[in-house]
Amino acid sequence: MDRGGNFLERVYGIIEEESSGHTPLVNFKYPEELQEILRNDLDISEPVSNEELEKSVRKILQYSVKTNKHTFRNQLYGATDPYGLAGAWIAEAFNTSQYTFEVAPVFTLIELNVISRVLDMFGLSNGDGIFSPGGSISMMYALVAARYKAFPEIKSKGMKNLPEMTIYTSEDSHYSIMKAAHWLGFGTESVRTIRVNGSGQMITEELEVALKHDLSHQRYPVMVNVTAGTTVLGAIDDIEEISAICRKYKIWMHVDACWGGSLLLSPKFKIKLKGIENANSISWNPHKMAGAPLQCSLFLLSEKNLLHKANSAAAQYLFQQDKFYDVRYDTGDKSIQCGRKVDAFKLWMIWKARGIEGMAHMTEHTMELAEFCLQSVASKPGFRLVIAPMQCPNVCFWYIPSFMRHQVEDDSWWELMHKITPKIKELLTKSARLMVAYSPLRHHKNFFRIAFTFHPVLEDKHVLEMLQAIEECGEMITSDML
Amino acid sequence: MDRGGNFLERVYGIIEEESSGHTPLVNFKYPEELQEILRNDLDISEPVSNEELEKSVRKILQYSVKTNKHTFRNQLYGATDPYGLAGAWIAEAFNTSQYTFEVAPVFTLIELNVISRVLDMFGLSNGDGIFSPGGSISMMYALVAARYKAFPEIKSKGMKNLPEMTIYTSEDSHYSIMKAAHWLGFGTESVRTIRVNGSGQMITEELEVALKHDLSHQRYPVMVNVTAGTTVLGAIDDIEEISAICRKYKIWMHVDACWGGSLLLSPKFKIKLKGIENANSISWNPHKMAGAPLQCSLFLLSEKNLLHKANSAAAQYLFQQDKFYDVRYDTGDKSIQCGRKVDAFKLWMIWKARGIEGMAHMTEHTMELAEFCLQSVASKPGFRLVIAPMQCPNVCFWYIPSFMRHQVEDDSWWELMHKITPKIKELLTKSARLMVAYSPLRHHKNFFRIAFTFHPVLEDKHVLEMLQAIEECGEMITSDML
Repeated sequence: MDRGGNFLERVYGIIEEESSGHTPLVNFKYPEELQEILRNDLDISEPVSNEELEKSVRKILQYSVKTNKHTFRNQLYGATDPYGLAGAWIAEAFNTSQYTFEVAPVFTLIELNVISRVLDMFGLSNGDGIFSPGGSISMMYALVAARYKAFPEIKSKGMKNLPEMTIYTSEDSHYSIMKAAHWLGFGTESVRTIRVNGSGQMITEELEVALKHDLSHQRYPVMVNVTAGTTVLGAIDDIEEISAICRKYKIWMHVDACWGGSLLLSPKFKIKLKGIENANSISWNPHKMAGAPLQCSLFLLSEKNLLHKANSAAAQYLFQQDKFYDVRYDTGDKSIQCGRKVDAFKLWMIWKARGIEGMAHMTEHTMELAEFCLQSVASKPGFRLVIAPMQCPNVCFWYIPSFMRHQVEDDSWWELMHKITPKIKELLTKSARLMVAYSPLRHHKNFFRIAFTFHPVLEDKHVLEMLQAIEECGEMITSDML
Repeated sequence: MDRGGNFLERVYGIIEEESSGHTPLVNFKYPEELQEILRNDLDISEPVSNEELEKSVRKILQYSVKTNKHTFRNQLYGATDPYGLAGAWIAEAFNTSQYTFEVAPVFTLIELNVISRVLDMFGLSNGDGIFSPGGSISMMYALVAARYKAFPEIKSKGMKNLPEMTIYTSEDSHYSIMKAAHWLGFGTESVRTIRVNGSGQMITEELEVALKHDLSHQRYPVMVNVTAGTTVLGAIDDIEEISAICRKYKIWMHVDACWGGSLLLSPKFKIKLKGIENANSISWNPHKMAGAPLQCSLFLLSEKNLLHKANSAAAQYLFQQDKFYDVRYDTGDKSIQCGRKVDAFKLWMIWKARGIEGMAHMTEHTMELAEFCLQSVASKPGFRLVIAPMQCPNVCFWYIPSFMRHQVEDDSWWELMHKITPKIKELLTKSARLMVAYSPLRHHKNFFRIAFTFHPVLEDKHVLEMLQAIEECGEMITSDML
C-alpha cells in the first residue's frame, strides 16, 4: 500500500488530536477573515512536504466544526458511530464500487443482507432496496418508481404524452420534493402542499379533498409523500390514515422516513410509524439519528424487480450476460448511479457490533433525552415550546429574554422575537458554546430546534448545559443589538 | 472521540495487513459458496465483541477484491492516491455535510478553491461548479442546466407544454445519458445516438444531419453530449468541430470528460481535449484516472449562477437569509442533494501534496505506460489491437489462442472468439493473476480492455506480466471448454 511516505499512518493521530475533548466546537471566523487566516494553507499552487501538509491539515481542522461534540446540535446528524466510521475508513481504503459481484463480492452480499434486514424492519419483507447518495436522491427514486409503475412507457417516450401528474406532500415536508419535481420534469406546480395541523402533521381530510379535485380535473395523482419525521418539528404524518386514502384511490404511497425511520429500531417506539408496512416505498437515512457517517441512505420498495425494470440500461461493458457467475448478483443496474460507494458496510458494521438490542437501546436513550429536554424547556422561565408532545427527538422552542417578558405579544413583539433567535444563535456560535438550528415555520417566527441523535451519547446534564447557554446568551441581548 | 473501545485505533493496522503485498488480488468464490463461507460473519442477528468483529472484518477483506493491486485493471479506477485517502478518512471522521458555511467553514472555502482551480484548468475561468456523487448524476446536472437555460419555466411548469426536445450523443458514449433521459422525463427515444468512426469518435457530419432533421421537424435540440474518453475504447470526440456545430445551431455542448479530463493535468496531453474551453458544461471524475477515492466527481458550467437559479429551493430551515454572516457562502442550494459529502477535500489533498507538476507527471507516466502496453500488444504474436493509436490510456485487444490462429476469420470463428475472451477472463480471475475488463462493442466481438490509472504506479514489467498472464490463460483454453 502506498502510504504517501508516512502520511497515512499519521492520519489517525491527527484526527484524534484535532477533535479530542479540549478542542472547541467551533472557532468562528467570517468567510473573508478565514480565507485570510488560511491563505497559505488553502493555496495549492505549489506541492508541499508531508510536514507542511500536516501543518495545513491541522490548521484546517482547527477551524472546522467538530460535529462529534455534544454541543453540535445544528443539524439532524451528529457524531459518527465509531463502528460506522471504521466501516467508512475500510470502504474508502478498499476503494470498492458497488455494481458488479466480480469487483465487490462480499460487499454485494453485505448490501443484500443489510437491505433484507431493513426491509423486515419496515415490514416490506418481500421488497427490494438500494443505497442512495442521500434522502433527496431517494425522493427522486420514489417518484421515478411511482411514475414508471403507472406509465412504464415513460422510460422510452418521456413525459410528453402522459396525462398531467400531481404529487402530494405536507407543507412541512422536506424541500427535496420540489427539487425532484423540477428535475424529473413534473414541475414544482404539480406538487400539492397539503396543510398541516397544530402538531405539524398533514391534514388527511385536506389531502383527500385535493385528490378528489385533481381527479375530477383529469389529473393523475402519481404519489403521496408521507413524512415520518419532518425536518423542523419532527412531526410524523398519520401513516395509517393516509395509507387508507392511498389504497382507496390506488395511489403510490412513499414514506419519507429519512429522519424518523430510526424509531423503528426500538420495539417501544415503532408504534409511532404504524402503517408504514403499507408503503409502496420508503426512504431512511441511518446517517441522521443512527450515527452512520454521511452518506448512508436507503431507498426501499415493496415490489421486487420494479427498481431494476425502471432503471436498468443493460450496459454491455459492465453488465455482460455471458459472465462465468450468476449475474443476478450484479445488482448495480437498478441504480441511477454507475459507480456507487459501499455505504451498506457502515450500517452493517454498526449493526454487527451493537445488535438490534444495542440500537434499540440507543433509540430509547435518545428519545428519553429529548423528552427530558422538552420537560426542562416546558418548566424553565423564559422558554416556550413551539409544539408538544414530541413525535421525533426534536425539541422546538423560543427563548424569551427577560426584557421581552410580560409584554403584549403583538405583531411587533413577534417581529422582535424573530430577530432575537438568530442573535442568540450568533452569540452561541461565536462563544463556541452551542451550535443549534433555528428556523421560521409557517406563521411561527424564528425559533430554536434541538434535535437529538444516538452519538455522542449524552446525559441530562449536557441538556441542561445547552439550555443554560441559550439562557445566558439570551440575557446578553439588548434591544440596541437588534 | 468515542472509539468503540479500541476498535478505531486498530482499523489502520487491519486495512494494511489485509491489503498488503502478499495478499492475493482476489479469492474468487461463487456467490452461494461465498455466502456459505461467510455465513456467521455476515449474520447481524446478535451483537459481537470487538475481537469477533475484527475476525469477521478480516475475513470479509480476505474475500474482497484488492483494488490497490497493479493487477486490478477491471474498471476505470484503481488504487487510491494515499493523500486522497487521507482526505477521505478525515472527511469521514469530521462527518461534515457541505451545504452551509456555518457547518463547513473551511471545507466550503476548499470546495470553492478547488472548483476555481479546476475551472481554470478547463478554460472556464468565470464559470461555476459543484461536486456530485458520480458521473451519472453529473450527466443529469448537465441536462437539467441545458433544459433550464432553454426553458426556465420547466422548473415550475414541467415538461408538459414544452416542445419535443432531443439529445445527441455518440453510440459509444456512457449509458448514463439513457438513464438521465428517463429520469428527467425526456424518454430514451429522445436520445439520438450518432454513429462513430473507426476510432470510436462521433461522426460529426452525422451529428449535423441529425440536428437538421430534428430542427426541420420542429424538435428542440437541447444538448449535445461530447465524450472525451469513451468507457471502452477511450475515444475522444472532436470537441472543436462539434463545438462549431453547437455554436452554429446554438445548442448546449456538454463534454463528458469523466475519464479523459485527467489528461488536462498535463501540458503535453491537454491538446487532446482542444475545444473543451467552448463547453457550456463539463464533467470530470478525479476518482477515475487520478486516483481520488470514490466518489470524487465534478460538474462544471461556463455560466455563473445558472446552477443556483436552476436548482435552488430556498429552504427556510437551512438557507436562512437572516444569518449573521454573508450567506453567499452557503453554497448548497445549487445542489440536487441536501446533505453532501466534502469530496473536494480528497482532490485538494492530492493537489496540495503533489502540485500540478506532480499530477502532470503522473498523467504522463500513465500515458507512457499505456503506450508501452499498446506497442507490446501490437508486436506480440496472438494479440490483436481493436484500435490504434491510443487516445486515452485504454488498450483494447483480443488474445487469439494458438489453436485459433491461421484460420479463416468468418462469423463462426468470431463467435468462438466471443466466447474465448470471457473464458480467459474467468481463468485469470480464478487464478488471481489479473482482473481485466472485457466487452463487446458494436460489431466487435468480446475483447479485453486494459485501462491505466495513476495508482498504483506501475513499471513496464508489470505490463508484460499482465500480457503474459493473458497469454498463458489463453493457451489453456481448449475447444471443449467453450
